[in-house]
Amino acid sequence: MPMRSRASPDLVTSLQNPAVKQIRALSERKAREETGLFFIDGVRMVTEAAHAEADVELVVAAPELLTDPRGQDVARELVRRGARRVDVTASVMLGISRRANPKGLVAVVHQRWISIDDLVLGPDRFALALAGIADPGNLGTILRTCDAAGASAVLLLGSATDPHHPTALSASTGAIFSQSLVRTTLHHFTAWTRERGYAVVGSAPDADRDYRAAPYARPLVLLMGNESVGLSEAERAACDLLVRIPMAGRVESLNLAVATGLLLYELFDRVRTHR
Amino acid sequence: MPMRSRASPDLVTSLQNPAVKQIRALSERKAREETGLFFIDGVRMVTEAAHAEADVELVVAAPELLTDPRGQDVARELVRRGARRVDVTASVMLGISRRANPKGLVAVVHQRWISIDDLVLGPDRFALALAGIADPGNLGTILRTCDAAGASAVLLLGSATDPHHPTALSASTGAIFSQSLVRTTLHHFTAWTRERGYAVVGSAPDADRDYRAAPYARPLVLLMGNESVGLSEAERAACDLLVRIPMAGRVESLNLAVATGLLLYELFDRVRTHR
Repeated sequence: MPMRSRASPDLVTSLQNPAVKQIRALSERKAREETGLFFIDGVRMVTEAAHAEADVELVVAAPELLTDPRGQDVARELVRRGARRVDVTASVMLGISRRANPKGLVAVVHQRWISIDDLVLGPDRFALALAGIADPGNLGTILRTCDAAGASAVLLLGSATDPHHPTALSASTGAIFSQSLVRTTLHHFTAWTRERGYAVVGSAPDADRDYRAAPYARPLVLLMGNESVGLSEAERAACDLLVRIPMAGRVESLNLAVATGLLLYELFDRVRTHR
Repeated sequence: MPMRSRASPDLVTSLQNPAVKQIRALSERKAREETGLFFIDGVRMVTEAAHAEADVELVVAAPELLTDPRGQDVARELVRRGARRVDVTASVMLGISRRANPKGLVAVVHQRWISIDDLVLGPDRFALALAGIADPGNLGTILRTCDAAGASAVLLLGSATDPHHPTALSASTGAIFSQSLVRTTLHHFTAWTRERGYAVVGSAPDADRDYRAAPYARPLVLLMGNESVGLSEAERAACDLLVRIPMAGRVESLNLAVATGLLLYELFDRVRTHR
């Protein structure tokens, strides 16, 4: 096994190693925000990062665990593109990875945010804005749906959870790399949509228009509220149209990722059928 | 405070109390299956149980914490209907509840399953069958969507996760009490749909028909596969029609709760618009 013997001389054996400590710190949002980095776990996510040409800072491999040839290939490819590589023992990898059975490959990647001023929606396109989304699992699931429905961007308004939270990354199944991400305020968002003439459609349980029957001008931004409280008065005021998802039963609302999925797929269907 | 002083003489102060031990055991699936009971946490869930006329075995209150008058009312109402009541100290409640800030009210409820032979779908109705669903959060979210979309029942096929898992209960936001639940095998399911003439529609990424354009006969049962592997060959063979949710991006699939939501709401829309 040439890889293992080549790696052994520099094998990191301690969780006190500076690179290892830096990676472990990235489980905290504060460290992610200070460094602009995040941490991805597993051959699949690292492969997605490579495909998306993400800016990978560091590849960490545990040669004892990394038996998947695709994982070995992607690690080499990322080093070729300029990433630093650190090899660690299996026990150090167990201290780094969140998985019960780590596959031996993790990476540290530069976050990619775009400025709202640089975001332009094409004539027939739509984007999603999330106001104060709190749950990282919901956010990751929504990124996954945005990728599938062909949304142009995801705008996070106000005090949103971090799309680079481990739970969000995992739920996104790689969509973290395909989606254009914007962080902004409601104030800037409103100025941006008005200047550019983008329609804003919000979702509210008391809206008059059924989401299946409403008219949607494009380019359009769908605005979804927080899980517990929905859209605030100020957020509703930013909308040109409010739509309602009908509900036949006893529950008061749908899960945010499900409701957002219904609206994104309605918009996707309108684009597909040129309505 | 008359409630507190009345409760104090019999206040349970130890986690070793038999009733408390029985409740704590219900966090394990094995204990739930052996007893046919489950455990709900918080004023809101207990209120939902009362509204749905669930068969509540035991109400546990921590008078020090139960300051919400609606919680006090629902506890009294459940006792009037025949539930046993146990009062505990705040520290015992902290050992029972999964919440960081327990509101002082939990209950033990009898599971309610119906036999597939007793399940009849009305002429214009639809139900959902989940084959081997693994994630309790997904299952709870799907129950919530079934309630909202007006599904008649949820059938769990094969080795499905337990809808009475705490994560599923919490994600269902009370829909655990409104939905008719059936546990069965693929074999019995297929016999049931054929005998009764119910159409079975499955979701598969390689299906020819787009879910928005497909014809749906009713009564209908939507069949969704497991999160990781989708529908098996045998499950596909049980379907009269396979439909596909289109995807524009790089991700390979949608989250199961999102995909199920899209299909349930398509069926709901067909019912609403008499198509």
